Amino acid sequence: MAMGGTRLRLLFLTLQLLLISSAKITLRFPSPAFRPESSSSVSIKSKLYETKYYTQILDHFTFTPQSYQTFQQRYLISYKHWGGAKKNAPIFVYTGNEGDIEWFTQNTGFMFENAPHFKALLVFIEHRFYGKSIPFGGNKDAAYANSSTLGYLSSTQALADYATLIIDLKKNLSAVDSPVVVFGGSYGGSMALFIWLLAAWFRLKYPHVAIGALASSAPILYFDNITSEYSFHSTVGNDFRSESENCYKVIKGSWQLIEDTAEQSGGLDTLRKSFRICKNYISAGALVSWLSTAFIYTAMTDYPTPSNFLNPLPAYPVKQMCKAIDDRKAGNNSNTFEKLYGAANVYYNSTGRATCFNLNDDSDPHGLDEWSWQACTEMILPIGGNNADSIFPPSEWDYAGRAQSCEDAFGVQPRPNWITTEFGGHNIQRVLKRFGSNIIFFNGLRDPWSGGGVLKDISKSLVAIVAKEGAHHVDLRFSTPEDPEWLKHARRREIKIIENWLSQYYHSSSS
Amino acid sequence: MAMGGTRLRLLFLTLQLLLISSAKITLRFPSPAFRPESSSSVSIKSKLYETKYYTQILDHFTFTPQSYQTFQQRYLISYKHWGGAKKNAPIFVYTGNEGDIEWFTQNTGFMFENAPHFKALLVFIEHRFYGKSIPFGGNKDAAYANSSTLGYLSSTQALADYATLIIDLKKNLSAVDSPVVVFGGSYGGSMALFIWLLAAWFRLKYPHVAIGALASSAPILYFDNITSEYSFHSTVGNDFRSESENCYKVIKGSWQLIEDTAEQSGGLDTLRKSFRICKNYISAGALVSWLSTAFIYTAMTDYPTPSNFLNPLPAYPVKQMCKAIDDRKAGNNSNTFEKLYGAANVYYNSTGRATCFNLNDDSDPHGLDEWSWQACTEMILPIGGNNADSIFPPSEWDYAGRAQSCEDAFGVQPRPNWITTEFGGHNIQRVLKRFGSNIIFFNGLRDPWSGGGVLKDISKSLVAIVAKEGAHHVDLRFSTPEDPEWLKHARRREIKIIENWLSQYYHSSSS
Repeated sequence: MAMGGTRLRLLFLTLQLLLISSAKITLRFPSPAFRPESSSSVSIKSKLYETKYYTQILDHFTFTPQSYQTFQQRYLISYKHWGGAKKNAPIFVYTGNEGDIEWFTQNTGFMFENAPHFKALLVFIEHRFYGKSIPFGGNKDAAYANSSTLGYLSSTQALADYATLIIDLKKNLSAVDSPVVVFGGSYGGSMALFIWLLAAWFRLKYPHVAIGALASSAPILYFDNITSEYSFHSTVGNDFRSESENCYKVIKGSWQLIEDTAEQSGGLDTLRKSFRICKNYISAGALVSWLSTAFIYTAMTDYPTPSNFLNPLPAYPVKQMCKAIDDRKAGNNSNTFEKLYGAANVYYNSTGRATCFNLNDDSDPHGLDEWSWQACTEMILPIGGNNADSIFPPSEWDYAGRAQSCEDAFGVQPRPNWITTEFGGHNIQRVLKRFGSNIIFFNGLRDPWSGGGVLKDISKSLVAIVAKEGAHHVDLRFSTPEDPEWLKHARRREIKIIENWLSQYYHSSSS
Repeated sequence: MAMGGTRLRLLFLTLQLLLISSAKITLRFPSPAFRPESSSSVSIKSKLYETKYYTQILDHFTFTPQSYQTFQQRYLISYKHWGGAKKNAPIFVYTGNEGDIEWFTQNTGFMFENAPHFKALLVFIEHRFYGKSIPFGGNKDAAYANSSTLGYLSSTQALADYATLIIDLKKNLSAVDSPVVVFGGSYGGSMALFIWLLAAWFRLKYPHVAIGALASSAPILYFDNITSEYSFHSTVGNDFRSESENCYKVIKGSWQLIEDTAEQSGGLDTLRKSFRICKNYISAGALVSWLSTAFIYTAMTDYPTPSNFLNPLPAYPVKQMCKAIDDRKAGNNSNTFEKLYGAANVYYNSTGRATCFNLNDDSDPHGLDEWSWQACTEMILPIGGNNADSIFPPSEWDYAGRAQSCEDAFGVQPRPNWITTEFGGHNIQRVLKRFGSNIIFFNGLRDPWSGGGVLKDISKSLVAIVAKEGAHHVDLRFSTPEDPEWLKHARRREIKIIENWLSQYYHSSSS
């Protein structure tokens, strides 16, 4: 058992590596096309936006010959509800994150739904090195070749891209006095967390470009040991535990069981059958990753209405998973696997169309792959440790392991203190009490990232909105008639605050 | 005359180029050793500080293999009056500017004189690529070779250097809770303006590293046409005019006279004799540069007490120059040159030891040369135009000329909008009214840079201190018993405000 425990801990290093790689484990059959769960008047079939490209500079912060290279940065723009430059009508900007901007745009209902009320121009800017915004001639093979080219993929360069593009766009629209509000919220089942950081950071670093930011589920305190390394996985466990103690215990006990089974002769075949794994590949580690991915992402997106990101999910999916576990009778091991399979099915097979699950799928339909570069350079979040209460086996955050795997993969060493050096984070209450303004930090406490969020007001205009029942940036999703009151309330508050920013701005301008 | 006027305007393009190059025109004999004019208890002969080096990263914002190169960054540190880490005693940091840090440090009396009162640790950090803080192996030839290496000389990299060094230093001193205040003020007769911008920008970009900034004579609004291109030279003219209308008129009339004389046969010889120019080199353009340098730098440093930067100057040197002009009788041309010579002598020869003046001196005793790189990349201040009222001939700011000369010199194109993109500046009142805090903007209105300064309070904690009688960052100089009341008053206000920042900080920490 002791040996087994050690092996289990080693096995669970995969969980930490999971945090480096994007969601590799997805279904082989094609993701359903985008289909918002909204009943709102915004028809997704109509053309929501135009696609444009901006000639962006490769390196804002140096002046080497290389730095002057340019690339085409994609942005999507919707004039449909804009009040126009003459009225200084506002501009809402989505500061793109680690993936294809179209995919994010189509999942950001909040901006579309509120554009008519604010008469806002909508702009969605793609993050460099993702989607179609590829430096080095637009050639992904060249851009992703090695650290000489990937080196220009960084948060600070991305923020400067946004500032440059926004300023130029406003000039070209003769709308230099139109106030800009930035929005951040990432969708998708990857461990992605980039963008909603970017919105908060953008307001802090470029207050002259954006009058305010809505930073939804931004774990700006999850760097440099400001937040406990255990927080993320603890919240995952608490989410399941809040549904039923039995559910929590079955999941928590399953890891050892999987490992023990895998060790037995014919055990992998048993596991394959139990979990309907395709014949091409199985290992205990891959199965553990596959299951824990399902639990983690389901906790992140534990929304009160059906959703569809990497995978379609029903409303309250954690409850559904626990139902799948609790409704099956207690019994022998294969019965435990049947329960887990039922839970996994909620995440991987809500359509019921899957015939088998592929553990060796490295497709990347949403273009998230380069997140692994960012996780190896500056985005060092000490996540992956599990304490005794965790739903996963106990383990410690392994920085040395991360550094080594980054060295192996890219030949780079992470800079683990850089993010807090550049953006702060330590003593944020004290630092920002008399500095900065106009940021909404939304957090849902069922979101595993929420432990790294700003959960208390910092000042009158650095406001924390906390939804006990909320998951990851639920506020930014398209609304539905089934939305619960707490969610409607959070959105109303956000709209009210943004209205205040704008009226302050117009008041300052006229005085 | 019309032709002459055109030629004169062309001649005056040299004035604009002057703003690119550092002060090339200095006396051949060695500059007197540092000698503060202070009678304060701080003895400059005793060891004021220790010299240390910090291993700094070449490029904070990218992750290419090149970016990981390091260099030795020099900083000077004085523990003498520090209250210590246990008491969280403050740290005063001078964010070094475009030259040798020792030279600047020895001219920053304000920090030394106030260290005992605040029990402050003093740290003076040298700017990358200046002094002894040379990347690429500490080898100036390698570092300055071309844009591939010089490209890493930029304001944003310098600010990140300071943040990184300060955070590390505080860790090493176990003083992470000691509040940091940054100071900016540049000394020296170059057109240098970098550092005092850096202090303000540092507070805006790194509020988590510095609780406040004293930005003395920071022309943060002199970019991107926020301020009139004529402002700088207009102030120079007003300074002389405020002493006497005759003085102003003699100087204003002299340029045409010099040009006409130079055109005549034997004219250059006449000019050489009139101005005691050494035999190695003379041209009308060089003479004009030499004279205008004297007028501009004397206006900048028109202090109420004797000073000694690039050249030693008496108290109220503009008054002294005008006295030299006004006291000589009106008369023929050679008499006009005699007057101008008398004025130039105030700036170039206060010791009376010069036997002739060298117009072809490219020595760089204070290591300011690399400013020309910065003036060719990001530091694009539209200065150099003169309106009809100017003491210099009418001319327009010539961006195309600057860009061409930068292309010729370095093969780079300036990025004229970058500084306002990164740091803002437009509508600063509106932008910063509800953003940012704890910056003192000091400006003396006799300082030609003051037109680009913040001259009105932006908020309760973004405070403008304006001294009508003051010149360039006079507040930061060593005090003397002869200091006028307005100067003492400005310094007392600054100290009071810094005291408030600190007590707010300690109050926030304890609560």
